[in-house]
Amino acid sequence: MTSPNPIARVEGFRFSAVPAQLRKDGRIDVALAVSDEPCVASGVFTRNLVRAAPVEIAEQRLRAGTARAVLVNAGCANACTGEPGWNACLESTEAIARELGIESESVLPASTGVIGAVLPADKIAKAARPLVEGLSPDAAGAFAAAILTTDRWPKVAEAEIVGGGRVLGIAKGAGMIHPDLGPPQATMLAFLFTDALVDRESLDRALREAADVTFNQASVDGDTSTNDTVLVLASGRSGKRAGIDALRAAFVAVCDPLARSMVADGEGANHVAEILVSGLESDADARSVARTIATSMLVKTALFGKDANWGRLLAAAGRSGVRFDPRMARIAIGDVEIVRGGLSLGADAEKSAAQVLAQKEYVIHVQLGSGGGKSRYLTSDLGHSYVDVNAGYRS
Amino acid sequence: MTSPNPIARVEGFRFSAVPAQLRKDGRIDVALAVSDEPCVASGVFTRNLVRAAPVEIAEQRLRAGTARAVLVNAGCANACTGEPGWNACLESTEAIARELGIESESVLPASTGVIGAVLPADKIAKAARPLVEGLSPDAAGAFAAAILTTDRWPKVAEAEIVGGGRVLGIAKGAGMIHPDLGPPQATMLAFLFTDALVDRESLDRALREAADVTFNQASVDGDTSTNDTVLVLASGRSGKRAGIDALRAAFVAVCDPLARSMVADGEGANHVAEILVSGLESDADARSVARTIATSMLVKTALFGKDANWGRLLAAAGRSGVRFDPRMARIAIGDVEIVRGGLSLGADAEKSAAQVLAQKEYVIHVQLGSGGGKSRYLTSDLGHSYVDVNAGYRS
Repeated sequence: MTSPNPIARVEGFRFSAVPAQLRKDGRIDVALAVSDEPCVASGVFTRNLVRAAPVEIAEQRLRAGTARAVLVNAGCANACTGEPGWNACLESTEAIARELGIESESVLPASTGVIGAVLPADKIAKAARPLVEGLSPDAAGAFAAAILTTDRWPKVAEAEIVGGGRVLGIAKGAGMIHPDLGPPQATMLAFLFTDALVDRESLDRALREAADVTFNQASVDGDTSTNDTVLVLASGRSGKRAGIDALRAAFVAVCDPLARSMVADGEGANHVAEILVSGLESDADARSVARTIATSMLVKTALFGKDANWGRLLAAAGRSGVRFDPRMARIAIGDVEIVRGGLSLGADAEKSAAQVLAQKEYVIHVQLGSGGGKSRYLTSDLGHSYVDVNAGYRS
Repeated sequence: MTSPNPIARVEGFRFSAVPAQLRKDGRIDVALAVSDEPCVASGVFTRNLVRAAPVEIAEQRLRAGTARAVLVNAGCANACTGEPGWNACLESTEAIARELGIESESVLPASTGVIGAVLPADKIAKAARPLVEGLSPDAAGAFAAAILTTDRWPKVAEAEIVGGGRVLGIAKGAGMIHPDLGPPQATMLAFLFTDALVDRESLDRALREAADVTFNQASVDGDTSTNDTVLVLASGRSGKRAGIDALRAAFVAVCDPLARSMVADGEGANHVAEILVSGLESDADARSVARTIATSMLVKTALFGKDANWGRLLAAAGRSGVRFDPRMARIAIGDVEIVRGGLSLGADAEKSAAQVLAQKEYVIHVQLGSGGGKSRYLTSDLGHSYVDVNAGYRS
């Protein structure tokens, strides 16, 4: 999907990544992003009640509305680790801050990996000097690669802001993906860096609204993580003041391909299905139906089997709790209509639809009436590789 | 799990099953149960908004509070089939009623199989005579075998009613199993036959309450079917009037092993996990947490992998929407405690827990505080066979 552009950069930000032996395989596993000057900053975090130490600490630090750096590790989620985990998170950001000569409160932490193990702060402290010495405006690709866990590829996206300035986005995520991000909530992690000049309130709102129509409408396995984090740092270096609409549009332009890339990279997945639901009374109703279809194991295994099994789509819609008249149902896979008036259009239509399901990406449109409410959800297929990845993840 | 007792019978009821070519493989696929006299009858049906014709018709007929016969077919759900499906259901019960010399309104239909195909009423009509001619008090086992779809074994259970009388229960179900049965709601099907003397109101209440703590707390894939049906017929033949408590206890004693057998037979499943949640403010809260854990794909793949991955258990609890203090969490797999005070008890405990996870059946106890609220949910593991069954089910 999106692949790291080797020249992805944004004015005022430098990146770095080194191996700190957090992962057993010795891969590069710690990444740092630093702004040359204080940034206006905001974040959205997982709404899971069980939240990792780095989530709690980043949220707390963002109350100041500013930040200078983002420190991310793979290999250890530092979730469910109590006070030792909390202290390890503090110590690791302190080590980085000391090396950078800035306040530790301006370093925002994020972690991903196995739940239950305490972050080895000493390993991060040892990596602090090489991390800071390696900082470069051209190392966004290295940052993006370092934060991966079960991901098959790094996720980078860029967009121009109408009126001036640009946004660089970097994300990771392939499993435990069903983000429920809220003012102050993935283990999806995403980091947005922009040179826009923007006030905190506009930055908050643009991020929240963009996350809600992108990451929050994407699912791999229906499981919301303890560590989901989206952070944005705005350096103001462009000198261009960004309006809320332009900023949100640019954030959506970055977050949408990142969310698609995560779903495409869903553990063991081969396909991205965009479940588009329309015709209901409200957008909220449509979203509930889209979410129920997107998280149905029977729908997802049918997608793996390239089976235009519309009965499973309708059955999932029917258990969503939303009222509709099944006799009004219309279903199309790509451009192929397979259900009209709640009834099958026959085996030939289903065969044509199965050809659409062989593609890497497609849209499934479920229309359930004549109302104006509509929404969408991105989901992946559920196949053997998903079982392989998750039955043996910790070993 | 439960296997058909070849001598399972209950006074006043006769059973029969024949092949009607509804299934491509030519297996016996139509079953009939008939009472010698009019029965007090009740039922609970799927709360899925999309409901098959037989569900609508059985519910309508039960308003009379009486019934004589139950007609069940596998191979075709007759769901999402509009007026043709409705008419086919009526015609098939009419053919049986004619052969029995009773009112068609006293024949309760139930169907299971693929969604979207109209029931071939002519095939049922042709089977009517051999079905009726074959009726025998000893053919409950044949009935139980005929209604199976992706099931690996038939499901029969029996119980005595304290004070007199007995209950015979027959069920099917392995996929699209997450029953949400309510006063007038699988594709799980279950049929209870009893010789108890009971009024309609007590029968209704005993069935509803028994279904709620058994079938409604069991999940294979989280998908609630369009066809889930539980019917009970009470002949009164024992001459013993059954009190509500004794009746509910006997229904639970029959429905619990049937629900366990369905989960054990969950598509591709090897294990039955009883997720026991306690310590919350209310039973409803505990049920929400138990349901969220029981339907988590990450939890279910960990069970397949025999991995005591408690992080996934806590992460699922945390996204359930129920408030609790993660620092109070205690988790035990069987008798092996692996989490106390929200923290891991170490690798040795997890290794011992993994041995419990190798068993066919076990209890996972998640205690989330000191409140009195508790509940449970039965769930299966998610492995490769689940994918095989569901990626190719219609072909």
